[in-house]
Parts: sequence; C-alpha cells; structure tokens
Amino acid sequence: MLAVTVNVKDRLLEIRDVDRKGKGNVLLKTLRNGICGTDREIANFKFKYTQPEEGEYLILGHEALAKVISVKDEGLFKENDIVMPINRRGCGKCLNCILGRPDFCDTGLFRETGIRGLDGFMREFFYDDAEYLVKVFPGIEDIAILAQPLSDLEKSVEVILKIQERLNWRCWDSTYSCRKALIGGTGPIGILTSLLLKTMGFDVTMMNKREINEVEEEIVKETGINYYDNTKGLGSLEGGFDIYFDTTGYIPLILDAIRLSKRNSIIALFGFPSTDIKGDFNSDLLFNIIDKQIAIVGLENGQKPHFERALVHLATWKSIWPKTMAKLITRKVKIEDFEEVKKAIKEKGKDEIKVTIEWG
Amino acid sequence: MLAVTVNVKDRLLEIRDVDRKGKGNVLLKTLRNGICGTDREIANFKFKYTQPEEGEYLILGHEALAKVISVKDEGLFKENDIVMPINRRGCGKCLNCILGRPDFCDTGLFRETGIRGLDGFMREFFYDDAEYLVKVFPGIEDIAILAQPLSDLEKSVEVILKIQERLNWRCWDSTYSCRKALIGGTGPIGILTSLLLKTMGFDVTMMNKREINEVEEEIVKETGINYYDNTKGLGSLEGGFDIYFDTTGYIPLILDAIRLSKRNSIIALFGFPSTDIKGDFNSDLLFNIIDKQIAIVGLENGQKPHFERALVHLATWKSIWPKTMAKLITRKVKIEDFEEVKKAIKEKGKDEIKVTIEWG
Amino acid sequence: MLAVTVNVKDRLLEIRDVDRKGKGNVLLKTLRNGICGTDREIANFKFKYTQPEEGEYLILGHEALAKVISVKDEGLFKENDIVMPINRRGCGKCLNCILGRPDFCDTGLFRETGIRGLDGFMREFFYDDAEYLVKVFPGIEDIAILAQPLSDLEKSVEVILKIQERLNWRCWDSTYSCRKALIGGTGPIGILTSLLLKTMGFDVTMMNKREINEVEEEIVKETGINYYDNTKGLGSLEGGFDIYFDTTGYIPLILDAIRLSKRNSIIALFGFPSTDIKGDFNSDLLFNIIDKQIAIVGLENGQKPHFERALVHLATWKSIWPKTMAKLITRKVKIEDFEEVKKAIKEKGKDEIKVTIEWG
Amino acid sequence: MLAVTVNVKDRLLEIRDVDRKGKGNVLLKTLRNGICGTDREIANFKFKYTQPEEGEYLILGHEALAKVISVKDEGLFKENDIVMPINRRGCGKCLNCILGRPDFCDTGLFRETGIRGLDGFMREFFYDDAEYLVKVFPGIEDIAILAQPLSDLEKSVEVILKIQERLNWRCWDSTYSCRKALIGGTGPIGILTSLLLKTMGFDVTMMNKREINEVEEEIVKETGINYYDNTKGLGSLEGGFDIYFDTTGYIPLILDAIRLSKRNSIIALFGFPSTDIKGDFNSDLLFNIIDKQIAIVGLENGQKPHFERALVHLATWKSIWPKTMAKLITRKVKIEDFEEVKKAIKEKGKDEIKVTIEWG
Repeated sequence: MLAVTVNVKDRLLEIRDVDRKGKGNVLLKTLRNGICGTDREIANFKFKYTQPEEGEYLILGHEALAKVISVKDEGLFKENDIVMPINRRGCGKCLNCILGRPDFCDTGLFRETGIRGLDGFMREFFYDDAEYLVKVFPGIEDIAILAQPLSDLEKSVEVILKIQERLNWRCWDSTYSCRKALIGGTGPIGILTSLLLKTMGFDVTMMNKREINEVEEEIVKETGINYYDNTKGLGSLEGGFDIYFDTTGYIPLILDAIRLSKRNSIIALFGFPSTDIKGDFNSDLLFNIIDKQIAIVGLENGQKPHFERALVHLATWKSIWPKTMAKLITRKVKIEDFEEVKKAIKEKGKDEIKVTIEWG
Repeated sequence: MLAVTVNVKDRLLEIRDVDRKGKGNVLLKTLRNGICGTDREIANFKFKYTQPEEGEYLILGHEALAKVISVKDEGLFKENDIVMPINRRGCGKCLNCILGRPDFCDTGLFRETGIRGLDGFMREFFYDDAEYLVKVFPGIEDIAILAQPLSDLEKSVEVILKIQERLNWRCWDSTYSCRKALIGGTGPIGILTSLLLKTMGFDVTMMNKREINEVEEEIVKETGINYYDNTKGLGSLEGGFDIYFDTTGYIPLILDAIRLSKRNSIIALFGFPSTDIKGDFNSDLLFNIIDKQIAIVGLENGQKPHFERALVHLATWKSIWPKTMAKLITRKVKIEDFEEVKKAIKEKGKDEIKVTIEWG
Repeated sequence: MLAVTVNVKDRLLEIRDVDRKGKGNVLLKTLRNGICGTDREIANFKFKYTQPEEGEYLILGHEALAKVISVKDEGLFKENDIVMPINRRGCGKCLNCILGRPDFCDTGLFRETGIRGLDGFMREFFYDDAEYLVKVFPGIEDIAILAQPLSDLEKSVEVILKIQERLNWRCWDSTYSCRKALIGGTGPIGILTSLLLKTMGFDVTMMNKREINEVEEEIVKETGINYYDNTKGLGSLEGGFDIYFDTTGYIPLILDAIRLSKRNSIIALFGFPSTDIKGDFNSDLLFNIIDKQIAIVGLENGQKPHFERALVHLATWKSIWPKTMAKLITRKVKIEDFEEVKKAIKEKGKDEIKVTIEWG
Repeated sequence: MLAVTVNVKDRLLEIRDVDRKGKGNVLLKTLRNGICGTDREIANFKFKYTQPEEGEYLILGHEALAKVISVKDEGLFKENDIVMPINRRGCGKCLNCILGRPDFCDTGLFRETGIRGLDGFMREFFYDDAEYLVKVFPGIEDIAILAQPLSDLEKSVEVILKIQERLNWRCWDSTYSCRKALIGGTGPIGILTSLLLKTMGFDVTMMNKREINEVEEEIVKETGINYYDNTKGLGSLEGGFDIYFDTTGYIPLILDAIRLSKRNSIIALFGFPSTDIKGDFNSDLLFNIIDKQIAIVGLENGQKPHFERALVHLATWKSIWPKTMAKLITRKVKIEDFEEVKKAIKEKGKDEIKVTIEWG
C-alpha cells in the first residue's frame, strides 16, 4: 500500500509502497490527511525530534480522518464508522499518561504518530487501538479533519479557564462578554482559536501585522470577531485585553502583550519561536507580571476529550458560520498526484489555510 | 397589542389587547413562544406561586424568541438581532444574584417572567434590558426556542460534573465513555438531557415505562442513545448507571435508582413530584447512600451562560442529528387562532414534544 | 508477640501470642491503638463484613500510632520516626485506587486493615509499605491517634466544599462566616467535625437530644461552638443551617434536616443507620430537595492527604484549644491488662469519647 | 494619641501626637505592629505609590495585632477580643472587590492602609469595620503578627494549587510528596513560604546565594526543609523542581529557574525586582515555556480567608516547630523609644527576620 515516508538520514521525502500497517484491534482505511507546519518542518528535515518507529524511515502524518474496515473485539466501534485517531501516545509510566492525558506527560517519554517514535497516518491502511480513536458524528465529515488542530486549542482554552479560576473572571451577567481576547496570528491556529473563544462568549479580536485580507474580512463579517492590524504595536487597541493568545512565536510581540495586558490577565503561548529575535526580560516586565498578577502559560497538544469537544464545535460552526467553514480547507490534493502531494507537504501555498491529502 | 393573560382570582385565561410593554433599554418584537408544563399549570390555575407583576392579571410566557426593534444605548445589540430573553431575574440582594446567578438565589426572592412577579413574553412587544438578552446565532432560528428548556439542563449537567469532581470520574481514556447515564422520562426534558449527555461522551439510556414509540426509535437510531422499558423495574438494566437523571418526579422510581446505582454515582432530581405516591426512607436506603457515597441533588433553572451553551449545542445537533431536531417541535399554533392557542396552553396534545405559538 | 484477634466463626475475642507481622519495607512497633465503633461491632460479631486476611482469625485494629524500627529501602522514613498507617488499601484495578484514592474505589474490592481482608494494627509489631505510612509531626504524639477518625472528616469536608462550588457559597467577606453548620451527634465524630468546621470559619452548632453535658460545656466555652438540644426538633434553631452533618444515622432527624435546611444547602450523611426507625420519602421531601436545590451526599474514609491535614489540625488545636484537646482521649488501657482491654473493646464506657490501648 | 507618620513632601518620618482614629464600628487599641520592606521604602521616601488618606501625612503601618475596646453593633466581636485588621480595601466597583477579594481588584483602584489612600495601624487607637477584622485564636498572640505576611503566601499557594489543577499534579499516594518546591530567598517571606509548603506535604528546599547561617540550620534541622547554596547556579540541585517560588526579584535567577524547572512546573513570582540587572527573553526561553508547558504567575496580597488560614498554620507550627517559631521575631522595640522605632523602620538590622513595635 502507499505511504508518505521521510528518511532524515538520506534526506528523502517519498510516496511509495510500504508494508507497515502497525498494531491494534481496529483496521482503518485513511480517507484524508491534513498537512500542518510540523509536517513541513519534518519533510524539510528541519525538525529536530523526528524519530522513526523502526528502521530508517518514518511514515508521516498526524492528522487523519479514517474509516473502520474491521474490528477484532466488538465494542466501541463497528465497520464503516468514521473516526479520527489521536496522535500523542503516553509513556506508560507517569500518572498523567495512565489517566489518558499524555499531553501532560511528566517524563517527556511520550510518542507522537508521524513525528517521534510512531509511524503516522499518511498511509492507505493502518491498525490502531480503539482507545485512541474518536468517533466522528455524521454530517461533518467534510470539515472533521480540522478537529486535530482544534483539539490542541480546546485543551488550551480548558487550561486558560482553569488558570483564571484563581479569581472571579466572569462578568456581571456571569458570562465572559466583558472579557477581551486578542489572538496573535491569523493562520489556521489563530482562526480556529478565534472561532472557539467567540463561541464561548468572549469579545474576540484577531490580529496580524498587515491589513485584513479578503478571507478574514468574510470571517469578521459572518462571526462578529474583530480584526486589528498591529503594524504600529498594540497601544491603540481599544479596551485592552484579558487574554493574549500567541500563535506567532514572535518575542517582541509577546513582551508588548505582557506590558499592555490588563490586571489579572493571561498570556497563552502556543506558537513556537519563529525567529531568533529576542527581547529584554527587565525590571519593568517583572514588575508588570507581579503587580498585575499576570499568568503566562505554555500550551500544547489536546487529547481524546478535546477531540470530542472539537468535533462538537465544528458541528456548531457548520450550522451558524457556514461561509467561514467553507473557507478553511483551501485545497485538496489527491494522493495519486505524487508531485503535487510532495509539493504541498514541502511548501506552504499562498493564502493557504488548511491543505488536505485525499485518499481514493 | 395582543397578549396572553391569566387572572388567577377570576380564573381567566385570555388573549386580549393590553398596553403593558414593561421596562428596559431594548424594544423587542416576539417571534415565537414555547409552551411548557409550568405554563399549563398556571393556565389551569394549579400553580401555587403565580403572581402578577401588577394588578390582577399576569402576562404568561417564559420561553421566547424575539427580534430587536430598537436599542436605547448602542452596545451589545443592534436592530434586527434575534435574541432570547432569560426568564429568572435576581433578588438584587444576595451574592449569587449579584453575580448573575439567580438560579442559586440565596433569599428565594427572585422573580420569574410569566410566572411570579414579572410579566411574561406572550405579548407582541416588550422592553427588556440588554443584560437579560442572549444573542441567537444565525442559522438556528427554527429550533432556538428549545434553548430555554435546554438552558436548565446545561446548568444541571454543569452541577453534576462539578459534584463528581469530588473523585476521579473520568475513564481510562480521560473521557466519560465508561460512565453510564440513565434518564428517567422521555418528554422534552428527558430527550434534551439525553442528547446533551450523549454529546458530552456519556453512554446514555433514556427510559420510559412503556415500549419505545416511533419518534424515540428514530432518535435512538440516529444518535446512538439506548432505550430501556422499565415496566419491570431497573434490575435488568445492563451495567448499572453512574448518573440517574430524573424528569418524572415519581418517587418509587427514584428510590429504586438510589438502590441500584453504582458506587460514587449521582442522582439528579429535576422533575417535581408528579403524584402523591411515596416510598420508605429506611435503613437500607441510608446505608446505600453512605456505603456507595452517592450524591443526590436537586436541580433547576439555567442562566445566561447556560443559554449560550444551549444555543451552541442546538447548532451542533442541527448538523449531526437533523432528523431528531426536526421532530422536537411537534406543532406550531398561530397567535391569531385564539381558541387553538388557548387549547394548546391548557392541554398537552398526544405525542406532543414541544408546541410553539407563532407571532406574525 | 501479642495481638488482639477475632475469630468470627467461633465467636472469640482474644489477646494472645501470634506470629503474623505482615509484609512491607518498614518494620513498625505499635505504640498506641484507638478503639472505635467498628471495632466494637466486629468484636461483638455484629459487623457483617469482617473478613480475615488468612486462616480463621483476624488481627483487629485500624487506628494506630507506631514507631519505625527498621527500613529496608532508605527513603521517606528513618528509624524512630513516629508514623500512622492508613487503613484502607486499594483494589489495584480502578483508577481511583491507582491514584491513591481507594476511598473512592469504583469496584468495591478495596480491603481494610483490621476489618476486611487485612490484619490490623492491634499487634506488637507489623510490616507495612512506606506509601501507606504518614509521618507524625513532633510535639503531637499524645493526640495524634485522633488523626485516623479525623482523616475521614477532612475528606468529608473536602467533598462538601467541592460540592458547594456549584454556586458562590462564600460570604461577602469571602470567608464562610455567614454559613451555619449543624452537627448531629456529639460523639468523637461529632466533636471532631465541629472543631474542624469551626477552624475553617463556619458558624458551628453541635447538637444532641439532651441537655449539654459538662465536657461539651467546656468545649463550647473554649472554642465558641454553639450547642443545641434538639429534644423538640430543629424548628427553633435560630437562623437555619447551610450544612447538616449527620453522625447519628437517625432517619427522622435527617428528614427533618432536609425539610428545614436553607436554599442551596448540603446534607452530609456520615453515620450509618443506628436503628430501624424509618421515615417517608414523600412529595414534600422531593419538592424541598428540588426547589431548594439541596445536595445530599454519603461520606466515608479519608486517605493519605486527609491524614496529613488531620495532623495539621490536631497541632493547631493543641495550640489554641488545649483544654478541649485534653478531654478527647478519655481513657488509656495498658495492653497487659487483658481483661480491661477486652472490656474496652467490647463495651463503650459512660461519657467515653476516645479510649486507647497502650503498648509498653 | 501617638502615631508614626510619614510626610513625603517634606520628607519627614515622625512619631507624634495625632487625632485621627478613622471610621468604623469597632474601636481598637493597637498591641503590636510588624515592620516590613514596604514600610521601609515608604519611610525612606522611595516608594512611588505612597498616598495619604487626607492632608499631607500618612499614618504608617499595615501589620497589626489589636484589642477590641468597644463595638457599636454587637455581632462578630466583643470587648477584649484580639484581632488583626486586613490591609487592602476594595474599590467598591469591580466584582472581585464586591466578593471580598480586592487582592484581585480589576480596576486597580483599591486602597491599602498605611500605604496608599488609607491611614495605617501604627497609632494607639483606630476604628475599623468588623468585616475587615480577623479574630485571633487564643494561645498564639505572641506570633500572630506573622499572619499578615503569611496571608499573602496562603493566597499565593492557593493560586499555585489552582493553576496546577490544569493537570494531575498529585503523586501516586495522592499527596504532594513527590513534588519539589524550591524557594528563592531566605528572608521572612522565603522562610514562611518554605514552612507552608512543607506543612502541605511538599519536598521543600530553601535557597540563598551563600552558605547556610545559624538560624537557617536550626530551621532545617527541626522541620526537615532542605537548604541549597546557589552560588554556582541551579544546575547541581538534585531532582529538579516543580515549583520555583521567587522572593528575590533577581531576574537572572528567575530565568535560570524557567530553563531548569521540570515539565508542567510553575514559576511563582512574588518578589518585586530588586536590581536593574536584566536578562534575555530569547527563543530558548520561549521554547522551554511551551515545550514544558510551564506556568508563570505574578502573586500578591492575601485577604480575609487567607488571614484565617495563616492563623491556623501559625498555631500548627507553634505545636510542631516551636524552636523555629521562637526565632522568627528577632527584635521588639517599644513605641516609647522614639529613636529606636524610627531607626527600626528606616533600616533593616543584621540577621533580622521580623521586627515589631510594641504598644504598652
């Protein structure tokens, strides 16, 4: 069967015939893969943690929609169910992994499909265990692939809300309507975070260092999210902000956010550093964090409960913001078009949001 | 303008011309009202807490979808927005009411539109304050009226999950997939609770003391919820249950549930007593509660955050379970058909789930 | 070595020479045992769950203060440390037991030292594993034995506070000063619960169906706890109550408490049924639970974190309420006085609070 | 009556006769004041937020033990009760202040006695409202003054534990025994934090950039807290750490802590910047925060519930660590010794931990 493989040693990205279906009680046929930034870093041999499950090549892919072909033990799944596999797998040693929460693995010995230590989902068939599969509701198969990146954000928002329980953070009407969320970056992560926080009742502003583009304009119009062009910094952003959610990894912007955020706010760091540009951690910054009692938190990886919630929210958005949802998957590439697929994996297209690989 | 009014003293249910639009910054035009069991009790003069806002008659109605006609202060809403008004209003004295949570009013001095102390929404126009209005997402206007009863259940499930945080209640995969919820009663409340818990990942069984009917069969088929006929009690229900959610108010069933529920389970009591049939609170029952560390909790009323979540879930269900959603509003009556409307308010129809009154 | 053993089959309570020290990395010498109601039920062959670890007799005792004699693996403990062993041990199968919380064992397959399936601590020496031992701070060895029953109450109060997080339950000054706790029963459990809730800032009333006795009067005077004689019911208790904590197992009193408790209150059931007197679970009771949104919860067993907190509170009380603390251990019996020990285990003495067995 | 006053404009620190007793229902006589770093900054005219309640001088003092002289409305307090006044008072506008939690004031318009906008407690008598007074348990009057700084740390630890609820942070025995806390700085704040975390079951190391001194050696011996000399950095600290609690405000040390802390750890920032030495916020630091999902949080000010808990813990420590407690108040100065008092307020003594002013 076909698979997309990476050989770091020989610097090869190939689509070729392999015979590695993995292990597990459920046999699955891949319907679609999503491509994300980590895939691109791996495929361009820039990701330092790439690690094959065995041998010299790794099967790529951590975003997948799949169909159940057969099930060894009857139980949670049956033939033809549409499912999504979760991508991070526990170390088997720490309590968080035992509790099904390898996103908070204490040892750092977790593995990730298509990234480190486990073959990924860019292959025609694979076996997996039922505990790692999430059932996809009918009616949202077209956009369900977004549940993988969205699961990370569901977990992120869960953490943000938990941290803010340190105080009374709800407004006079007991909603979050008075709390302003600023999202740095308008890539897929920035857009999905904006949609999620808007759905939860926040006053949301998404932000980029340029004028709003056409797609963003349509999203803003349909959803009521605001747009802010931060070319001249954050200073003129009306009303301040209670959450700054960073997807850019751009340190000067993060420091600016710490300085300008409101009392009791939270700075959520999701985007890995994007450049080597650094900033000063000085007395003023430290004073700001303490005096305003700011919380800053690093965030990554969602697990099964977050996939479940991601699917619920995708279904919501399909009903209420259909135009926005129709814009998020910007291109579909057929697996048969080898060169197209490889190019899509290697390079980000212009104005691309999410690109998928389609399997027959 | 027209309004549905109740005069308890003279035992009158009337649709007639009134000039009472109430107070507030936003003028609203009613689009639709839902009718529920409390309306029927009031309209049949059996509800003991009925209390007019002023004078001798009360304008009925606590479930409404409305359109914004004009707004005094620009802000959260604008003309033509579709909104739902929340129905319980705080006492202004206790902390829970000040926090926007009159559902947990400490004094019992709260008021409820169309029920006690405040005119309701069965009138052509009314004024209200922005803080009591919830914006309805586009695309779900047809089913949004269900958000009022559903808000009570969103609050109920919030309380259930909070109470169960007393232990580790999540399963090995960190979801609720191993937790079984049993819902007593298949009226609108029972069905909505079943849909909600299913969406949140529970293994859900809805239950009635008869064979499954046609609508229930379709719901079961589309959603994966189970059905149990408890004619012969709960004893043969496979695998026990971790939540028993009662909408029946039938005491022998509640006692049976306490006896048969699993260790660390929760008994959620939502349905007011339906008959005078009682049961024994005996040593066996007390032993069961302590030895199994069961929690039992009374539940009522959702507030603004629960309306918001209810609208999110209705939008989800419209995408994933469209057939089920199409069955829940079983009849629409036009306000012009005075006798039809009064009959619908007075009597529950056969196989009725939710009946609405449509305003021009 | 000596041990107190029970043979249910032959109805024998004996103090005799045995050679059963159990297993574990730490060898311990028993300094003191506490005697509680469960010991008495076992010793009078009335407890239905009594189960030896092996053979026909069970070594009694689940409350102990002990000294470390030797440690196989150096680590948490060293020679001469004073420790308390925890008494409930997990099933090894469910997540709660794996998390060190067998108090919420899902399977019911847990074991309890000196009660079911495991030999107890009424023996001169025993082995145990470090994970089941709690280090006792210096300076409180005289009263530390109370940490075993108190641990159950630390857990109970933890659960109560968690359940009440369903609403804003704190007062205007963000303490619990406006929340009234009523404790039914003034045995050791009732007194310890009263002290604990008083320490946490509640307005506490302890209650018995008789006039206050001398010891209670001294406690009331030193601590500021109130006393209520409920001979004529709960009706004349000023200001109502937000917690009713039952240690009596007397059902008519529990039902009265549900009827008279305040909105949003909690009924905590700790005392197992004491008689077969029962009451009605009727419409009025169900209406009360729902309309006032009362939570009712069964409570039992504390674990290691609760032992730790119990020791902290005992140390607090020794500083602030020394007279009260001096009254709680009412009698000490030497293990050498066989008949005295057996009598103390079999029968509760007049005005007894806590009786201990002293080992050389 | 006498008072310690500061006139910033004329740069005067005086002990003199004033006639300003303030307002409130309770008249109090000051027994003792504590002196802290903020007092010193104010008294040396270096604190930029100093603001009189009225006129040109401010009465200093935010740490006090006082006796109730008279009470206008009978209620929570009676004559001769020993109490502590809390020092931060709400803005009256935001929800956190209304909830009695001005420590999380959203507006920043709170006031602080003896610091900004309100006269302080360094005066013979003052009036205050009952809601701002915390009753001191008998038996700990000698050390109760420490409850003011300790209240800030009780709040800090509450926030730390809340933030760490984002994951399962408890150990296999459900305590915190496997979690290592590192405390930077061994001033009164560092010592009290160490004692508090040790009491709560953490493995605690206190740290300073020098060899351990005599007092610290005695504390280490009595309490089981560890000491670490970080002259050569944090690298050789065995086993890493899960909490770094900073009281130093020294940025290079904070950055080192972020780099070396364990996965899922928390960096608690309590000490305001102590110098202008800064560090780099670079890619490596950002990567560390995200990849290890570190939380960083600014912390300040405890409120009434935290004073209550502080008093409980002081009482605990008096029982279990009497030698340590006897060392914390290093000097007492009588108010009559004007020059001594002024000197004590202006300058920190050698090896001083806490200095108090004694009022007749």
